[in-house]
Amino acid sequence: MTGMPQVDAAAIIRDMAALSRIGATREGGVHREAATAADGEARRWLVRRMREEGLSILLDGIGNMVGLAPEGTAGAPIVLAGSHLDSQPHGGRFDGPAGVVCALHAIRAVRREIAAGRIAPRHRLGLVNWTNEEGSRFAPSLMGSQVFTGALDLAQALAAVDRDGQTMGAALEQIGMRGQDALPRDIAAFLELHIEQGKALEAALCPIGIVEGCWGTAKYTIEFRGRAAHTGPTPMAERRDALLAAAQLIVEVRAISDRTAGTLLSSVGRIDVTPNSTNIVAETVRVFAELRDKDGARLDSACQELEAFARGLEGAGISVAIEKPTSRPARPFDAGLKEVVATAAQSLGIMPLRMHTIAGHDAVAIGARYPSALIFIPCADGVTHHPAELASDADLVTGTEVLAAALGDLVQQADP
Amino acid sequence: MTGMPQVDAAAIIRDMAALSRIGATREGGVHREAATAADGEARRWLVRRMREEGLSILLDGIGNMVGLAPEGTAGAPIVLAGSHLDSQPHGGRFDGPAGVVCALHAIRAVRREIAAGRIAPRHRLGLVNWTNEEGSRFAPSLMGSQVFTGALDLAQALAAVDRDGQTMGAALEQIGMRGQDALPRDIAAFLELHIEQGKALEAALCPIGIVEGCWGTAKYTIEFRGRAAHTGPTPMAERRDALLAAAQLIVEVRAISDRTAGTLLSSVGRIDVTPNSTNIVAETVRVFAELRDKDGARLDSACQELEAFARGLEGAGISVAIEKPTSRPARPFDAGLKEVVATAAQSLGIMPLRMHTIAGHDAVAIGARYPSALIFIPCADGVTHHPAELASDADLVTGTEVLAAALGDLVQQADP
Repeated sequence: MTGMPQVDAAAIIRDMAALSRIGATREGGVHREAATAADGEARRWLVRRMREEGLSILLDGIGNMVGLAPEGTAGAPIVLAGSHLDSQPHGGRFDGPAGVVCALHAIRAVRREIAAGRIAPRHRLGLVNWTNEEGSRFAPSLMGSQVFTGALDLAQALAAVDRDGQTMGAALEQIGMRGQDALPRDIAAFLELHIEQGKALEAALCPIGIVEGCWGTAKYTIEFRGRAAHTGPTPMAERRDALLAAAQLIVEVRAISDRTAGTLLSSVGRIDVTPNSTNIVAETVRVFAELRDKDGARLDSACQELEAFARGLEGAGISVAIEKPTSRPARPFDAGLKEVVATAAQSLGIMPLRMHTIAGHDAVAIGARYPSALIFIPCADGVTHHPAELASDADLVTGTEVLAAALGDLVQQADP
Repeated sequence: MTGMPQVDAAAIIRDMAALSRIGATREGGVHREAATAADGEARRWLVRRMREEGLSILLDGIGNMVGLAPEGTAGAPIVLAGSHLDSQPHGGRFDGPAGVVCALHAIRAVRREIAAGRIAPRHRLGLVNWTNEEGSRFAPSLMGSQVFTGALDLAQALAAVDRDGQTMGAALEQIGMRGQDALPRDIAAFLELHIEQGKALEAALCPIGIVEGCWGTAKYTIEFRGRAAHTGPTPMAERRDALLAAAQLIVEVRAISDRTAGTLLSSVGRIDVTPNSTNIVAETVRVFAELRDKDGARLDSACQELEAFARGLEGAGISVAIEKPTSRPARPFDAGLKEVVATAAQSLGIMPLRMHTIAGHDAVAIGARYPSALIFIPCADGVTHHPAELASDADLVTGTEVLAAALGDLVQQADP
């Protein structure tokens, strides 16, 4: 490591504040789901900032945005950093945007080192905003990064439909963010900074986490079909109550976790009920369930339990359809990149915490094909996907410094 | 009974068909919730038909519509017949409208007898469309009839809010159906014809049911509040999952009925989940539960069980708020009016079936204050609140004949 990039703390804080105003909610969070007007505004903010930084902007067919720095040889492999600007509905300000803003400033700092002749770049630097990481409006999550790696078909992603029947493609068109550029494919490394979404860093009083690997995740959409009927006079024996079956499944999804003493994580966060009227026995209910575990065998066995229970609810006029749109295996991140980040942190006097990620991240999707690393910074009380989500200014700055040191190292490596 | 009114079968079928086209769904039902554009259109259709019949139209503050026939002394007590034009979301064509169309034609037939001098009226005849019987868009149900009897405050009813935050008052304004007329208060009798919403008449091959009384009904809105959190990394022990609590309650609501071997009817047809995102532990869930029984003591005891179970879910970060917006006791209908209807049926050669109503009806609300009767006609396979809901043309005509005979009797009684 020849240069130690200096980051502009005030500008990081200013940029985070500017982004946090876009789609801001009264509760202090943001409501900025993928390809909404608010997402469009955040993307236009990023376009302006990339232009100010002198980056060349590329926009691909699923709306992934890459800003390429001019330094380095045209056609050289790219060292990419970034995250996502979309949020959960009524979500927090930091999940995603922190990684974009810190990457923007880390790249800025490294480029100043290059301009001053203290770093000689072999690779090109790129800033990225992956489309629709959250997947709350259009499923699946990690959409942009999965389209980039080829794990998800572009046409299929564009055809995803939200609750109002709009497609992802039409929504991207509407905000002017459906592009045609081919992104560079020669990715030497991808680095993502993200808030931890847990309390481990806070508890350890440590500002930096290096993610060893990701947990396995299985996501299910299970549809129960019964028959609409008046809740008054219809005899109990003749009711085909899809909501009752759904409730039994929700209780079982929790029980599956309880049987592992909470080691395996399970949840149902969403349920779509039709017609959802007080006086009508529910006809169709879709339950969105997920299971997560770092132990692949235990996860597989839990999946079998869940599927068997759901199938067991079939009969007496209730039909069941089980879909499993996401099945992500547990996987370690690139060993060499983890060491680059560790060295960067240590050069700043920080002993990083080694940890796992339970949540999916773009770095998990990109890591399936390219060397990737995921850097965590603390978030207050572990609260996330909530308006109270908070990363401190100091931790954002420290995270940017570590990211800049790692990028500075990578950009001059012959073979990162 | 001096005259036997003749009904116009072809016109009944024509009017039912015309109404069924308003808000029609592809599945063969209607989607015509209270104070929607479709409800407005159905009401304007009724205004036109009332005008053609020469009825004087009154519209009150909650949108109840009454058409008064000119015969009889001004200020004489009113013999009222009708039902409601609103439907459940994606509901059936007959629940409500059958009672309005049959009453329109029964009144028409009686008035022909009056015109021919075969009936001498002491009372006036009135046709009524009660506002928002269903309560699916704006709670509570039986809104117009309860405002009429004073059981529900007009201002409170107008302030009811739908899922989009619109008030009942604003919705009525929007369709031009918020009136200012005072309805006549001297109601000698109210007769409502309605589809059975069960299979008893069909099973007995009987076209007419006389409803002895209504079951007791308790409706609850139970709100669980937890805390939004990421469904991935949040440890199970720290989750405050409002949807899990709601699912446990839904399972228990069924168990309460199971413990009575299905004699007590219970259901949860609606559940509102916030934020209802796959990746977020649900923060707030409202469960709409109901219990129905003809045995008041058993109903009270079931209410206590339900409330105790809901309160038992409180704790560990989940709070519970229990509301009971509807508590309708079991009650018999007016004995004298039941005999008038029975005599009318018998005069047509029909031996009516005596039965109870489990569902709420406007006649139940009006019956709390005025002599009321509820006449059932069969519905195919007991299916109701569903697009497949069906009453046969023949049964609609027979029902109208019985209604006309009863109205003909009542309108000339000194003291019905």
